[in-house]
Amino acid sequence: MPFESLGALRAAIGDLPAGDDKAASAVANRQDTLTKPRGSLGRLETMVGWLARWQGLAMPRLDKVEVLVFAGSHGVTAQGVSAFPAEVTAQMVANFAGGGAAINQIAKAVGAGLRVIPLEVERATRDFTTGPAMDEGDFLAAVSAGYDAVADGTDLLCLGEMGIGNTTAAAALAAALVTGDASAWVGRGTGVDDAGLARKVTAIRKGFDANREALGDPLGIIASLGGRELAAIFGAALAARHRRVPVLLDGFVSTAAATPLAKLAKGGLDHCQAAHVSAEYGHRALLLALEMPPILDLGMRLGEASGAALAVGVLRGALACHAGMASFAEAGVSDREA
Amino acid sequence: MPFESLGALRAAIGDLPAGDDKAASAVANRQDTLTKPRGSLGRLETMVGWLARWQGLAMPRLDKVEVLVFAGSHGVTAQGVSAFPAEVTAQMVANFAGGGAAINQIAKAVGAGLRVIPLEVERATRDFTTGPAMDEGDFLAAVSAGYDAVADGTDLLCLGEMGIGNTTAAAALAAALVTGDASAWVGRGTGVDDAGLARKVTAIRKGFDANREALGDPLGIIASLGGRELAAIFGAALAARHRRVPVLLDGFVSTAAATPLAKLAKGGLDHCQAAHVSAEYGHRALLLALEMPPILDLGMRLGEASGAALAVGVLRGALACHAGMASFAEAGVSDREA
Repeated sequence: MPFESLGALRAAIGDLPAGDDKAASAVANRQDTLTKPRGSLGRLETMVGWLARWQGLAMPRLDKVEVLVFAGSHGVTAQGVSAFPAEVTAQMVANFAGGGAAINQIAKAVGAGLRVIPLEVERATRDFTTGPAMDEGDFLAAVSAGYDAVADGTDLLCLGEMGIGNTTAAAALAAALVTGDASAWVGRGTGVDDAGLARKVTAIRKGFDANREALGDPLGIIASLGGRELAAIFGAALAARHRRVPVLLDGFVSTAAATPLAKLAKGGLDHCQAAHVSAEYGHRALLLALEMPPILDLGMRLGEASGAALAVGVLRGALACHAGMASFAEAGVSDREA
Repeated sequence: MPFESLGALRAAIGDLPAGDDKAASAVANRQDTLTKPRGSLGRLETMVGWLARWQGLAMPRLDKVEVLVFAGSHGVTAQGVSAFPAEVTAQMVANFAGGGAAINQIAKAVGAGLRVIPLEVERATRDFTTGPAMDEGDFLAAVSAGYDAVADGTDLLCLGEMGIGNTTAAAALAAALVTGDASAWVGRGTGVDDAGLARKVTAIRKGFDANREALGDPLGIIASLGGRELAAIFGAALAARHRRVPVLLDGFVSTAAATPLAKLAKGGLDHCQAAHVSAEYGHRALLLALEMPPILDLGMRLGEASGAALAVGVLRGALACHAGMASFAEAGVSDREA
């Protein structure tokens, strides 16, 4: 277990490697020689530079793309915050194993590997309206599981989750980390009605009251209001930074789970991009707060890393252009008139 | 040649088949049984319904996806409206043939076939500031070439273009078809400076004066202010409707070229989606006017069907989910509490 103590975790967060400016510059220089008006591939060009910067390679690779889906169970479901029963988390883990979920299809379509990592799904976290969702040991175990799940040699990592009740946890994190108003962050999740929405707000307010002393510290916030799969996403995002792996974050829950890294270290999420903006209410505002423009905006709100995996196809197109296009000189095409 | 006369073309436009409501309903019904909250795949769900509606298949296919890039030369380049010299059109056609352009890489990455169709590239259209870009014979030949380029059995068609000077033609079309103010539609194209931008506005105003009598009719507008590749895109979009082929339109030029179909027939572009919104100035406004929300928004402004082809990956992901996901019953997952 990489993090036996909060101190060890804080030390790892305090030691984030910078990106490789030289690799990113090499990409920009090559882009300007290719047979297209400069900058005309828009974000495709800057995304290749981002891959290069965080892989540390002038010609980045997407040979080994991995999707990690962490699953966890939430005690706060006792507050009636989800449209689906809590047992659906374990049932969906079985569905992932059987290949029947959306992420199975999308990962296959974009040529990405998929690993689903259930985190003690049979044992829900404590209902955070009564105290911390995880004690220190629970929290460090989940962060460590996420950290250890990132394999060396991964070219791109997609991070996603499954956990009935976890949009309530994510809204609590966003409220505590960005602004304090719970009602600004709750959304319908898998489909609660207005009464369910009100229960989410109430649960978060109670959670704030029950965990007041933890809220001064981003790690305290994710431990007390998050869940195991959120802690694991946080750990995986940290591992990816240490292992030079660029990350595509999925929706509201994944973004909220990674947010403590931005709060604890300047540029802590620079190796991450928002794969999409989901239809879950708080996501757009959270991405604005993090200054992370999403790649896709398709009204998705499923989680499971489905949006993150879908964006892999866009990155493959971007890299294919960068690697395969002819230069003006090679193709005998006249450049713009000076 | 399918259209020997404007009358024959008008008859074809007057005879557009409707979509298949039954196939679209079958998709919506199946979507609601799959292991996800209803509607949680957002636009992925509605895009599959759109494919089904226009293919006329309850389980749509993306086995044969084709990218068509039409190329043409523009007499209006004499007005100094482009940052690149006019000969780049022919040079880029050679680059497409050699496999060195962006569209070659993206088409390959998404598993689409690519055909580039040069339309008398060595013979520019007439400078529309002095009279109609194409006479009736020229126009019908280009529309017919586009119409004939759509192969039966195509599951999805991406339409794009190459033609130095053609963002000026597209802005002229948008101004004439949507609102009359040239300055509201011109953009920097491949990269003109402010003086170039002003020359584009002037050219369009002169074009309006020189073609006043043609502007009352959408076909007159595209013949007199468009170009061969725009006329061919118009013809291909028409053929796709007749042949039950859904269409992804590329950027500003492709969208402007298809716009007469929306003006001439109610729902005339219902079988088309905007693959992306480009960074070329007028595109977002044109898509708003056509009520066509784009699939992607990545700041691209290259043309060549590059944005259209990139969106194929999104459709493949959408269809993979629809075809491959388990139902709640199959997977033993509890549906939402009633």
